Amino acid sequence: METQRLKLIVAYEGTPFRGWQSQRGGGAVQDVIEAALLDTTGQPIRLHGAGRTDAGVHALAQIAHCDVPRSGIPPAKWRDALNARLPPTLRILRSSPARPKFHARFDARGKIYRYRIWTSDVLPPLEHLRAWHLHGPFDFAALKRAAALLTGRHDFASFAANRGTGPVDTVRTIRSIRILRRGPLLSFRFEGDGFLYKMVRLLTGSILRVAQGKNDLAWMERLLAEPGQSKSSHAAPAHGLYLDRVLY
Amino acid sequence: METQRLKLIVAYEGTPFRGWQSQRGGGAVQDVIEAALLDTTGQPIRLHGAGRTDAGVHALAQIAHCDVPRSGIPPAKWRDALNARLPPTLRILRSSPARPKFHARFDARGKIYRYRIWTSDVLPPLEHLRAWHLHGPFDFAALKRAAALLTGRHDFASFAANRGTGPVDTVRTIRSIRILRRGPLLSFRFEGDGFLYKMVRLLTGSILRVAQGKNDLAWMERLLAEPGQSKSSHAAPAHGLYLDRVLY
Repeated sequence: METQRLKLIVAYEGTPFRGWQSQRGGGAVQDVIEAALLDTTGQPIRLHGAGRTDAGVHALAQIAHCDVPRSGIPPAKWRDALNARLPPTLRILRSSPARPKFHARFDARGKIYRYRIWTSDVLPPLEHLRAWHLHGPFDFAALKRAAALLTGRHDFASFAANRGTGPVDTVRTIRSIRILRRGPLLSFRFEGDGFLYKMVRLLTGSILRVAQGKNDLAWMERLLAEPGQSKSSHAAPAHGLYLDRVLY
Repeated sequence: METQRLKLIVAYEGTPFRGWQSQRGGGAVQDVIEAALLDTTGQPIRLHGAGRTDAGVHALAQIAHCDVPRSGIPPAKWRDALNARLPPTLRILRSSPARPKFHARFDARGKIYRYRIWTSDVLPPLEHLRAWHLHGPFDFAALKRAAALLTGRHDFASFAANRGTGPVDTVRTIRSIRILRRGPLLSFRFEGDGFLYKMVRLLTGSILRVAQGKNDLAWMERLLAEPGQSKSSHAAPAHGLYLDRVLY
């Protein structure tokens, strides 16, 4: 059967799904889209995402690719064909033809993640499961210094959870960490060439430890200087994290 | 027992509740807060809201009052006492002492509602149940003229659903309708001295009928000129509506 490679822009609310990656028993975003592909074509079709997101993590524009039968639905129409079979918390924003060798994960040059923190006493209901509710006071000068320290090329082994897949290269480049404050909302925008497992949540949680004065900058410097010798255990919760964009 | 009048600023996501007003069988916002008041004090306490919102309608700052025992919890601390007993989709943003005759509903000088419409092909998952998904194209000049026509003092009987409570005064003043466009998001901000039952949803739905070219301005003029002779049946869905503020 002749196939056509398809590039999908995928958005989801993280709460109802068991993360991106296919799970035994289903319920992951990948499972749900693969079920829609099977339902549309009658054939099992494998979906490849640019990056795995954990349960609870949201995506504004995850990228995925798959090979679909060439005859039948035109590439741009796959969006509607799949959306008709997906829940409203999971949407294909766009489907387009990709070159035969395009790979959503291996071709990615970088990623942008955002992390949202709500800092006032009460979390507004519309922010429930969409931001981390964390009280101040924060030392914003220390917060900025911590973010500056992490920016650049480092071995981030101390800011990664083990995935149980043997030794991996843990050197990554964080191109920028932008800090935004708007009223009680504090948010981070991380841009980097790639991120290790749980890395953005560990970076965020660790920056906030410093901002709260619970750890000092020397602690963070040590974690960077002696990669993996000890690890930060301060991961921010999944529901404040957003995969914003994949860069090619 | 000596009591103290309390003013509450209340926010909720509309989706999980059966509207504001107490329902047989419970499940309304008022029921849930009254249950928390009973649980806190051991006494049935009646809550009075500034305005009823329908099931699915959100509130950023609904106002309510109630009389609580004077001894015990200080007024500002009722916020935390109640929040500990409320679901995260319903929050008391602030509790404060009110003068003995303060009435959340009768003292209100006006209200601000917002209505959010998402106009692109696909509704992003994070907008699910938070905006009305309505495709264009829209005639924005006609939309603005329709909004201008509705602004001011009118008998809005044609833009109200019957509540089955006999004849009511259906004259209201809309002080302003502001139209905001940001990318695919179109939103309205209605400020008025008061709104009839389903009025904001009927105004929004009717303005959009004109913007889509499905009805003309003459139709809207007729509905205003002959109040209640015929009625607009084009109510926008509840989940795009937000009670933003109550003015005193």
